[in-house]
Amino acid sequence: MAENQNPDQSTGSKPKRRRFRDLTPAEQDELRGRMRHSAAHVLAEATLTLFPEAKLTIGPPTKDGFYYDFDVPRPFAPADLERIESLMRESIKANRKFVERDVERDAARELVADNPYKLEIIDGIPEDERITFCSHGDFDDLCRGGHVESTGEIRAFRLLTSAGAYWRGSEANPMLQRIYGTAWESEKALREYLRRQEEAAKRDHRRLGREMDLFFFDPIAPDNPFFLPKGAFVYNTLVDYVRDLYVRYGYQEVITPQMFKTDLFKTSGHYDNYLEHMYMLNVDEQEYGVKPMNCPSHAVIYSRRLHSYRDLPVRYADFGRLHRYELSGVTQGLTRVRSFAQDDAHIFCREDQIAAEVNSFIDMLAESYAVFGFEETRYALSLRPDKRVGSDEQWDKAESALTAVLEERGLQYEELAGEGAFYGPKIDMFVPDALGREWQLGTVQVDFNQPQRFDLEYVTSKGDRDRPVMIHRAMLGSLERFLGVLIEHLGGSFPVWLAPVQAVIVPIAERHAEYAYSVRAQLTGAGIRVVADDSNDRMNAKIRRAQLQKTPYTLVVGDRETESGTVSVRTRYGENLGATPIGEFTAMALDEARSKAPLKPRAAWQRGARQVDTGTARR
Amino acid sequence: MAENQNPDQSTGSKPKRRRFRDLTPAEQDELRGRMRHSAAHVLAEATLTLFPEAKLTIGPPTKDGFYYDFDVPRPFAPADLERIESLMRESIKANRKFVERDVERDAARELVADNPYKLEIIDGIPEDERITFCSHGDFDDLCRGGHVESTGEIRAFRLLTSAGAYWRGSEANPMLQRIYGTAWESEKALREYLRRQEEAAKRDHRRLGREMDLFFFDPIAPDNPFFLPKGAFVYNTLVDYVRDLYVRYGYQEVITPQMFKTDLFKTSGHYDNYLEHMYMLNVDEQEYGVKPMNCPSHAVIYSRRLHSYRDLPVRYADFGRLHRYELSGVTQGLTRVRSFAQDDAHIFCREDQIAAEVNSFIDMLAESYAVFGFEETRYALSLRPDKRVGSDEQWDKAESALTAVLEERGLQYEELAGEGAFYGPKIDMFVPDALGREWQLGTVQVDFNQPQRFDLEYVTSKGDRDRPVMIHRAMLGSLERFLGVLIEHLGGSFPVWLAPVQAVIVPIAERHAEYAYSVRAQLTGAGIRVVADDSNDRMNAKIRRAQLQKTPYTLVVGDRETESGTVSVRTRYGENLGATPIGEFTAMALDEARSKAPLKPRAAWQRGARQVDTGTARR
Repeated sequence: MAENQNPDQSTGSKPKRRRFRDLTPAEQDELRGRMRHSAAHVLAEATLTLFPEAKLTIGPPTKDGFYYDFDVPRPFAPADLERIESLMRESIKANRKFVERDVERDAARELVADNPYKLEIIDGIPEDERITFCSHGDFDDLCRGGHVESTGEIRAFRLLTSAGAYWRGSEANPMLQRIYGTAWESEKALREYLRRQEEAAKRDHRRLGREMDLFFFDPIAPDNPFFLPKGAFVYNTLVDYVRDLYVRYGYQEVITPQMFKTDLFKTSGHYDNYLEHMYMLNVDEQEYGVKPMNCPSHAVIYSRRLHSYRDLPVRYADFGRLHRYELSGVTQGLTRVRSFAQDDAHIFCREDQIAAEVNSFIDMLAESYAVFGFEETRYALSLRPDKRVGSDEQWDKAESALTAVLEERGLQYEELAGEGAFYGPKIDMFVPDALGREWQLGTVQVDFNQPQRFDLEYVTSKGDRDRPVMIHRAMLGSLERFLGVLIEHLGGSFPVWLAPVQAVIVPIAERHAEYAYSVRAQLTGAGIRVVADDSNDRMNAKIRRAQLQKTPYTLVVGDRETESGTVSVRTRYGENLGATPIGEFTAMALDEARSKAPLKPRAAWQRGARQVDTGTARR
Repeated sequence: MAENQNPDQSTGSKPKRRRFRDLTPAEQDELRGRMRHSAAHVLAEATLTLFPEAKLTIGPPTKDGFYYDFDVPRPFAPADLERIESLMRESIKANRKFVERDVERDAARELVADNPYKLEIIDGIPEDERITFCSHGDFDDLCRGGHVESTGEIRAFRLLTSAGAYWRGSEANPMLQRIYGTAWESEKALREYLRRQEEAAKRDHRRLGREMDLFFFDPIAPDNPFFLPKGAFVYNTLVDYVRDLYVRYGYQEVITPQMFKTDLFKTSGHYDNYLEHMYMLNVDEQEYGVKPMNCPSHAVIYSRRLHSYRDLPVRYADFGRLHRYELSGVTQGLTRVRSFAQDDAHIFCREDQIAAEVNSFIDMLAESYAVFGFEETRYALSLRPDKRVGSDEQWDKAESALTAVLEERGLQYEELAGEGAFYGPKIDMFVPDALGREWQLGTVQVDFNQPQRFDLEYVTSKGDRDRPVMIHRAMLGSLERFLGVLIEHLGGSFPVWLAPVQAVIVPIAERHAEYAYSVRAQLTGAGIRVVADDSNDRMNAKIRRAQLQKTPYTLVVGDRETESGTVSVRTRYGENLGATPIGEFTAMALDEARSKAPLKPRAAWQRGARQVDTGTARR
């Protein structure tokens, strides 16, 4: 497979082909996209060889791979996928050239005359657009283009699964059969991807939510989680953790209503700009809205009294439950729900206080991310868009305040021109989780608009009236979503301070139950969250169950422990710390909880794993 | 005033007249009612003497007094009330006899021919009912009856205030002028009542809520409180307090959605029986309801898995926000709101566990009431009504379980035959506050209905399926309402553990500010909630403000304190504890907070006050 003989497709010239690892991330993504698109063609070729009656429909690349949808009389069996994969390998070995060509509309319709799907696609292409086909070997397909040079450039691939899928995603249309695959620049990258997928499936927060009895969903309240006792404990402990930070960082918590006359949302602008995400209802023949955000309530509180320049900044925090209408149907677990609370706060300050407030916020955010084991944070600074409120002078001040904070802290950041909200510039914070997937968690947004809409004021040192700036900020964002991310990041292994059950006592035989209860009483008295597993199961089953629940410590007690007043400590990672005096275990567990020492979430599953550049998944 | 000459009106016989204090509470209430009704007649008589053009309308007794509504050309001035009161005293001194008589309908209409209000009243009396008039001296009025024998029996009265009031309460009708008064069996009881009213006004939680910056209401969200930082602190601390009890008493907190498809409420029965109090909305073209109660969600959680008899009891607690539609217009502050959270929990247990569960609940309830300084609890046991679900055997068991608990604890209780809910018997708990007003706070209700509606089951020791019982219980009830009651009970003087600000440091002059800040840092570090009042106000104004805010401790610091490393401690009750080393004050304050020692709320304002039997105000 002569890498160096292939011309660079975009320019027609023949530059020295660079090694994959020497490409920029954007170039790598672009090449992977073409490789995957090409693999979809090879998949269609192979499928048509085995199922000549199959009708081709569409076959695009995806974030991590590709798929192709076929109209076939029956679903594909695993054995079908194996045979198709094997034919694909032959085609790749043959290193067939991809050849794109323009086709006149009528000729194109002729080429796919017996395929209603392709006809529909052609008829959807605007009259003034080119229609192109691409062939490799004997296989020919309607196609927009974007391939590698030849099938041999598909370096590593794997078919993954197949499933039913409606034509154009609509239940009203015929059911097709979709085959999913993935393709990578090397066998090593492919293996690493499959390994990550496997790990991600194990860490899926919906699965762990079930296995660990944390939460569930029920069709009676779609996209609204029910938190079971253990999940509610973790949720409340997150809130308490943020509350403690708030005391130190000078925030004041308030509690605000959930339903308001829509006048409030007309003043705030949500009525004009956010109505499709709001739940509306009628009360006393007036229109009410359920709040989707806390900012308007905080503006109401601020506006109730006159503030002096000395009173600012005022920082109102609110864990109020928010409701936002989202289309249902896609089950994303906690990462996309209709009801949630945020670690939400709004700072009302003078323009000259923006930098100090943002700086203090980043202090708090960095402190909390470290506690949760998020090791690197990426910052993105979004600057003024064309359509905006506020004067250029205000934008200058706010943008330079945000820039100065990032610069002075020596943070790496990306500057996104034109990407700011219409109401002000912002910084967004992204963290990669243990599997390398990137999540946006934090945000800090300057807002010139709400203070104007609510006519907020303060008295300056000269006795004039001026308008405060409002800063929206959240560290963890939606607590529901954060919990979902955290579960996947930690694979469910909550640090000791956050674990709903910190230790499970396992008596080896029934005669050790008494001692188990006495240990339970001692540990509970010391403030450790502990249960005794006095079920009739065998010891190994009990230990397995405790580890499935990611319980930090399993304390096995038998004759030896009963006599010596010890517990045999096993960690959830399989380490056996041996017989330990109760007092010693207590001190260790309490110390671990108190220190909030972050786990190293990568370590557990990546023991010996080689790191790979993975691309990012922003949500 | 010849007390013994008056015949007993109800029987016509002349029993020996008993002294007021020898009457039963019900008899006392009945006599007070007649005295107040009679006073309203005397009020009308006096008003007509001074304002002959006034038209009489209605004048009933109320819970604590009486009023009369007059159609007069102008509002009454305070001087008018004084003159009316003085004429009333003359009429009472004259000891005029009240004489009731039947009047034919036509004759009655004739008597009030120039008074459209009285004509309307007469026309509203059904044809088959008697029409009666009552006269005393020259005054005559249409009246249903229920007087004392003669004006002299109105032992003590006072006119209080006047205000506009619409005829029949409707804005569409003419505005009348209402005069309020109160009447009691003795001058002593009157004085005590006025004193209590004055104290109640000072303790009005709406007023204290404003003065202490605890919460406010805004027309943008009628009957939905906004909790300011200090109010939110108290609210959250109440929740934390209950959470700590839950850990000790074996409850498990869950977090449940707020909006459900109405199928849930059809299953639970709320859709048929509670719809007028529910907020409904439309989501994805389906009817949804905002939850008014947590029980259906807890039934959903219970029903998700099979329970064995060994798993029971299961106790789910929920601080979920509830919404109940109430007619607006009457501002009652926190005691009647449309949105609130309860210290709500539901126990799923076997029938043979009811007694133990109720007993443990009363333990917890008694512990918490003592902490809040509620000294006596009255228990009311409500038994089976005619319309009910559940078998007689079930009712027998449940009623005898509740009775046994009350008996074995040696509690005083009232048994209310027929007053139980249709779904099971219950015990309600009432406490008198510091002003003697009684409030229902706690309830524990056995429910045979919800387990049936949700088809809840558990596996018995024999392997059969049986239905658990559900117990609804709350100690404090709505936290919003409880906070309102508690503020009035304590006159805003929260115990140290609950006080949002525990100490205010007051530097005597500007040069003491540095020392004040150093004291603040030391106390904050020790975990005391403290602020330094470095405003430009004078020392006495600062001390007054701290006391108005009911701050437990005011720490004055001047030259002497700076030199000696002390603070001069003043309590909110005006006691001056003198210069105290910082460490000593810290230990004292922390100890007081830790012990949760209840205040003696009566003591503060009733110093030297004589106790009086006051009647109760249940809400």
